[in-house]
Amino acid sequence: MVPTVEWKNGAVRLLDQSRLPESIEFIDCRDYQTVADAIRTLKVRGAPAIGVTAAMGVALAAQTITATDYPTFSQTVLAICDELEATRPTAVNLFWAIGRMRQKLESVQGQAVSTIKQVLMSESQVILEEDITLCKTMGRHGAGLIQDGQTILTHCNAGSLATAGYGTALGVIRAAWEQGKKINVIADETRPVLQGARLTAWELMQDQIPVTLITDNMAGSLMKQGKIQLCVVGADRIAANGDVANKIGTYSVAVLAKAHHIPFYVAAPYSTIDLNTKTGDDIPIEQRNPAEVTTIHGSHPVAPKNVAVYNPAFDVTPAELITGIITERGVFKPGEIASQFQTQ
Amino acid sequence: MVPTVEWKNGAVRLLDQSRLPESIEFIDCRDYQTVADAIRTLKVRGAPAIGVTAAMGVALAAQTITATDYPTFSQTVLAICDELEATRPTAVNLFWAIGRMRQKLESVQGQAVSTIKQVLMSESQVILEEDITLCKTMGRHGAGLIQDGQTILTHCNAGSLATAGYGTALGVIRAAWEQGKKINVIADETRPVLQGARLTAWELMQDQIPVTLITDNMAGSLMKQGKIQLCVVGADRIAANGDVANKIGTYSVAVLAKAHHIPFYVAAPYSTIDLNTKTGDDIPIEQRNPAEVTTIHGSHPVAPKNVAVYNPAFDVTPAELITGIITERGVFKPGEIASQFQTQ
Repeated sequence: MVPTVEWKNGAVRLLDQSRLPESIEFIDCRDYQTVADAIRTLKVRGAPAIGVTAAMGVALAAQTITATDYPTFSQTVLAICDELEATRPTAVNLFWAIGRMRQKLESVQGQAVSTIKQVLMSESQVILEEDITLCKTMGRHGAGLIQDGQTILTHCNAGSLATAGYGTALGVIRAAWEQGKKINVIADETRPVLQGARLTAWELMQDQIPVTLITDNMAGSLMKQGKIQLCVVGADRIAANGDVANKIGTYSVAVLAKAHHIPFYVAAPYSTIDLNTKTGDDIPIEQRNPAEVTTIHGSHPVAPKNVAVYNPAFDVTPAELITGIITERGVFKPGEIASQFQTQ
Repeated sequence: MVPTVEWKNGAVRLLDQSRLPESIEFIDCRDYQTVADAIRTLKVRGAPAIGVTAAMGVALAAQTITATDYPTFSQTVLAICDELEATRPTAVNLFWAIGRMRQKLESVQGQAVSTIKQVLMSESQVILEEDITLCKTMGRHGAGLIQDGQTILTHCNAGSLATAGYGTALGVIRAAWEQGKKINVIADETRPVLQGARLTAWELMQDQIPVTLITDNMAGSLMKQGKIQLCVVGADRIAANGDVANKIGTYSVAVLAKAHHIPFYVAAPYSTIDLNTKTGDDIPIEQRNPAEVTTIHGSHPVAPKNVAVYNPAFDVTPAELITGIITERGVFKPGEIASQFQTQ
């Protein structure tokens, strides 16, 4: 699998996910503004991947700062952290990862700026590697929930492409597959940006995991026909009460799963859990450009010009619709999240 | 509003709905094969419009038959009826309209073929005009269900474009609007063919009825936020027990409406009611070309090449999820349909 994000010759190399699956192209970010732009325009997306990329953006920016005194250097880094935090509002991993870089910066106060630059580089690489490890651990915990022969619905892309590698929801599916379970995946295409069609289907096909693509509005009918046995999705933010913000349409999948008595799981690492957000009502929901709905890829129109559009990028699935949350520490009921992760 | 279908200089003139909203183009069908092709390729779509168009196709074909003896003439017409019936399997209006043409043909046995040709032309025009009348009557019955200030969700296009004019579900909305009720419409874009984005949004904007376009997966979230007060959709076939086949995604909307205690109505004329089909399980569901899902407009790819696709054009909403069925005879519970329409 092509890396989603990596350090390459001093640049942050991103796989341009807006071009998939038609072409595999990379963006070598040599300044943090390019990183910020890539996050804003969904060239890199997926809550964990955004977090990792933003941390690398901070480290990248740090290398270019000429100040050699700590106060000036750190003020500049912190201002850049603010800028990177402003790229997207919903996925908490962005704030978590940048927060970790802020803490690291503070913890090395007093050391030479040249040393601190190295420390920030290293910390971003640690975050990246940790993310892959978290995904694999989640995969092991979650794979036991999937039985041989089952068909699993997923929404959006919570895969290798949404993380530093392996994936959250797709990590669980991947782990079950690696255990030799014969499974099938149904991928919601996930309008408007089609992460399911463009990314999840592509990623699973690369790994030769059987996948069937559907439009989002087909999931309910398939459930009614008994063709789906389990749902697993990722998360952009998990509130203290176990409510989950995730890609728009996740809530509908959860309601439909409940109506058909199908278990509905969320897979996410601790960095997605935000105990400072009490409930889903407190999660800011990003509203994106209407052109995502009225055109395909920003160019091919599919709706009348100037039509009014509602384009929230996320919705909130309340805890009561969630069977379990798969984390690197195990699988928990949504209501157990706060106590399990209060010491994070 | 541009006519969906009409007689024009001896041809069946169809508005090419596959080109909307980008361009308004017409197809002048001078043989029934062109009519059949237009139905198959969704240049004309919507259960009532398909019925009207197919009847006109039969009449058109009749004009070109050179045989002057009734047996040869009628056998040729009946064979063409078979061909037109094979264009699409789900919407019963197609079979109803062609069945009516068959009956008319039989009823005039013994008359001169030249006269019969005129009779068939007239009958198709009667079917067309009756369809508009039915829609307006349905609109009057249904408009009373809509209150001033409500926001109404609709799925696919059950509008003027899906009928000979005025519409079924959109006829109800149109009638409420004409009564001066300040309403808002939320249009599901309706993947894969985007009838909601391309047709419903366009049609309502033409009439200056406020409409907001969403992707199909946003409906649930809007319902949860209390932003939708009523759902109304069309139908492709209503079984004797009140189960309704309609555009894929309708079932999900109905489940979501039920979960949010939002009334869910179906609007359809008697020609959509098929008492020979006992339940929704007996309705054949058309499976369409995967390219509808993997590309936009057949050309712009949105998914990996060769991905497996499931593409049912319709789903079945069971009677228990339907608040009422709006017909030209009034609004009925799904369970009342069989007794109300047994004498049709």
